[in-house]
Amino acid sequence: VPGERMATEMAAQPEVLADLIARRVEISDAIGAVVPHDLSGVVLIARGSSDHAAVYGRYVLQLATGRPVALAAPSLHTLYRSPMFCPGFLAVAVSQSGRTPEITSVLQSYVNAGAAGIAITNDPQSPLAEAAGATVELGAGEELAVPATKTFTAQLAAFALLAETIGRIQWTGDDWDQLPEMVSRTLDDQESPARVATWLADAPGLISVGRGFMYSVALESALKLKETTSLLAQGYSAADLRHGPVAVIERDFPVLAFWVHGPAAQDMQDLVGWLASERGAKAFVAADDGDADLPLPENLVEALAPIPAAVRAQQVSYELALLRGLDPDAPQGLTKVTPTT
Amino acid sequence: VPGERMATEMAAQPEVLADLIARRVEISDAIGAVVPHDLSGVVLIARGSSDHAAVYGRYVLQLATGRPVALAAPSLHTLYRSPMFCPGFLAVAVSQSGRTPEITSVLQSYVNAGAAGIAITNDPQSPLAEAAGATVELGAGEELAVPATKTFTAQLAAFALLAETIGRIQWTGDDWDQLPEMVSRTLDDQESPARVATWLADAPGLISVGRGFMYSVALESALKLKETTSLLAQGYSAADLRHGPVAVIERDFPVLAFWVHGPAAQDMQDLVGWLASERGAKAFVAADDGDADLPLPENLVEALAPIPAAVRAQQVSYELALLRGLDPDAPQGLTKVTPTT
Repeated sequence: VPGERMATEMAAQPEVLADLIARRVEISDAIGAVVPHDLSGVVLIARGSSDHAAVYGRYVLQLATGRPVALAAPSLHTLYRSPMFCPGFLAVAVSQSGRTPEITSVLQSYVNAGAAGIAITNDPQSPLAEAAGATVELGAGEELAVPATKTFTAQLAAFALLAETIGRIQWTGDDWDQLPEMVSRTLDDQESPARVATWLADAPGLISVGRGFMYSVALESALKLKETTSLLAQGYSAADLRHGPVAVIERDFPVLAFWVHGPAAQDMQDLVGWLASERGAKAFVAADDGDADLPLPENLVEALAPIPAAVRAQQVSYELALLRGLDPDAPQGLTKVTPTT
Repeated sequence: VPGERMATEMAAQPEVLADLIARRVEISDAIGAVVPHDLSGVVLIARGSSDHAAVYGRYVLQLATGRPVALAAPSLHTLYRSPMFCPGFLAVAVSQSGRTPEITSVLQSYVNAGAAGIAITNDPQSPLAEAAGATVELGAGEELAVPATKTFTAQLAAFALLAETIGRIQWTGDDWDQLPEMVSRTLDDQESPARVATWLADAPGLISVGRGFMYSVALESALKLKETTSLLAQGYSAADLRHGPVAVIERDFPVLAFWVHGPAAQDMQDLVGWLASERGAKAFVAADDGDADLPLPENLVEALAPIPAAVRAQQVSYELALLRGLDPDAPQGLTKVTPTT
C-alpha cells in the first residue's frame, strides 16, 4: 500500500517522544558528564532533514547557553582538511542511522581539535556514537519510508533535552508531560491537512515560512514536500523571504506559514497579511488557533511547538503525495543513506 | 532603459575590486588592531545577498583561522533577546548600506557580549560602522538597481582580505593583481550568458549547485534569478542536493552548476554527470574550462573564483529578465533597504 510505512512511522511519534522524555534524567546525566565547564561555543554537524533539526538546535542551544552556535560546513573538513582548534567547544552530530561516514568524520575532526563530542542518533552502536563522548539515543527505531518523520521530531526533542541539561530554558516538566498527547491529537486530525493538500494539488511551487523556532519547520516542510511530492517547495525565515525571494510570489502562489504565540507571532501575522493583500498569495496557516488551516496545540510552550508543527508538514506531504499518485514511502531517486565525500 | 542601472553597476566591478585591492594594507592594519589575540571563534551577521557573501566568509575564514565560524540568527537577538557571552569572538557584520537597523543591533549585542566588532559596508559613516571597532569600506558606491551586484563581489573580496589578515591563506598578491582584469574579461563575454538565458526562457524552475567555496555562488545565483526574473530558483550545496531536493529534478529540469579546479571539482563533475544521465537534467556548467557553458577564468586560485562566478550569475539573471520582458533594475515588490525586526 503506497504510504503505508510513512503512515505507520508518523503514527509512532507520540510513543517515541514519550519514551525519550521518560529517559530525561539518564540522558541529562550522560551529557552533563562531557560538556565543557567553561563553554566557548557549540558546533552542530548534520545533513538533510537532520540539518533542519540542527537549525532548531541552533535557536534552542544559543538561547539556553548564551554562546554562539555554528552549523558545521562538512566539506571544510572532508574536502579541504581545515586544521581546527576548538577547546571549550561542544560538537553535536546528528544522524538518523549514525552511519553517514561524512558526519562521523566531521565529528571526529572536532573531537581531535579539542571539542567535546555528542551524538544524536537512533543507533548507540553506530560509528557516530563511537566517535562521541556521549550519545542521545533517539529510540525512534528503523525508518523504512525514505522521508524521515519520527526521527526528525525525536531529534527536535533531543536538542531541547540537550538545552535543558546545559543551560536555562523556558519550559517545565509539565510541557514534556503533555507533549505526546498533543502530538497524538494532532495526528488524529487528518481532515485539515487533507484540505490543504487538495488546494495544493496542481500548485507549481510553494513557499513555507517561519521565524525563530519555527524557521526549522519551514525548512523541513519544504524538504518533505519536495521529497514526497516533487513540488518545488522552498523554506524561508520571514526576514529572508522579504529580502528578494518574495519576487516569485504571484497571484494564488501558495504560502505555508507557521507560528504560535510568542515574540515571532506578530511579525508572521504581518507578513502573511501583506503577502495575501499585496502579492495575492494563497496563505495556509499552521498556528495555535482553532481557526487556523492547520491547528496546532494550544497552551504548549513556543520552544516545543515545532514538534507538532513538523507533524503538520508530514501530514500535508503525505496527503499531497497520494493525491498526486505518488508513493510517499519511496520517492523517486532517493536512498536512505546518502554517501557524500 | 530597462536594466540600464544593473548593467552599469555590473560593469563597475573591475574598478571597485581594483580599488579595494589597492587598499589591502590599510584594511589589514585597521582589522589587525581589533582582532582578539586568542581567537575563540567568529560570528557573521548578514541578511539577503550579504548573507550569501557570509556563506563564502564562513569557508574562507574557517580555513584561515581553524576556528568555528557561525552565521548569526538575528531573531535570537532582536526578538528573543538572547543574553550572550562571547569574549574571544570576532563578530563581522555585512550590510550594503550599513543602515539595516537589525544588522546593527545584532552586531551591538555581540560587541556588548565581549566580541570584537567589524563592519563590511559601503558607508563608513553608517550606524553599522559606528557600532564596529573597525570597518572594511567596500567602496562600491551607491547601488541604484535593486539586485546587488558590485557590492556582492566586493563583499566576497572583503572576506578574503579579512582572512588574509587573521590567518593563513592559499593565494598571493599575484592572484589579487590579476583579478580585476579577469572579471573584466568575464564581463566582456556576454554571448555565453545570453545563450544560457535563451535556454531558460520558459523554464518553470532551476536548481543552482556548488560545493565548498562555490556554495555561496549557488545560493546567490538562485537569489539573483528569483529577484530579477521570478524564476523559482533554489541554490544547494552538492551534498544537500543529494539529500532529498534531487526529487524535484525531472526530464529537462535546468541545473546551473559551478566549479573550478580543486578539491570540490571531482564531486561536482560526478553529480552533474549523474543528474544528466539518471534524472535527465539539463545541466549548464560554469567552470574554468573554455568548453563550459559559462567559462570562468583559468589560473585563478579556487578561493577567489567565486568572484567571477558571481558575475556569471548576474549576467544570466540580467539576460533572462530582459528576455522575459522584465526590468532587472526594479523587480516587483522589492525595495532597497528591507526593515526586519
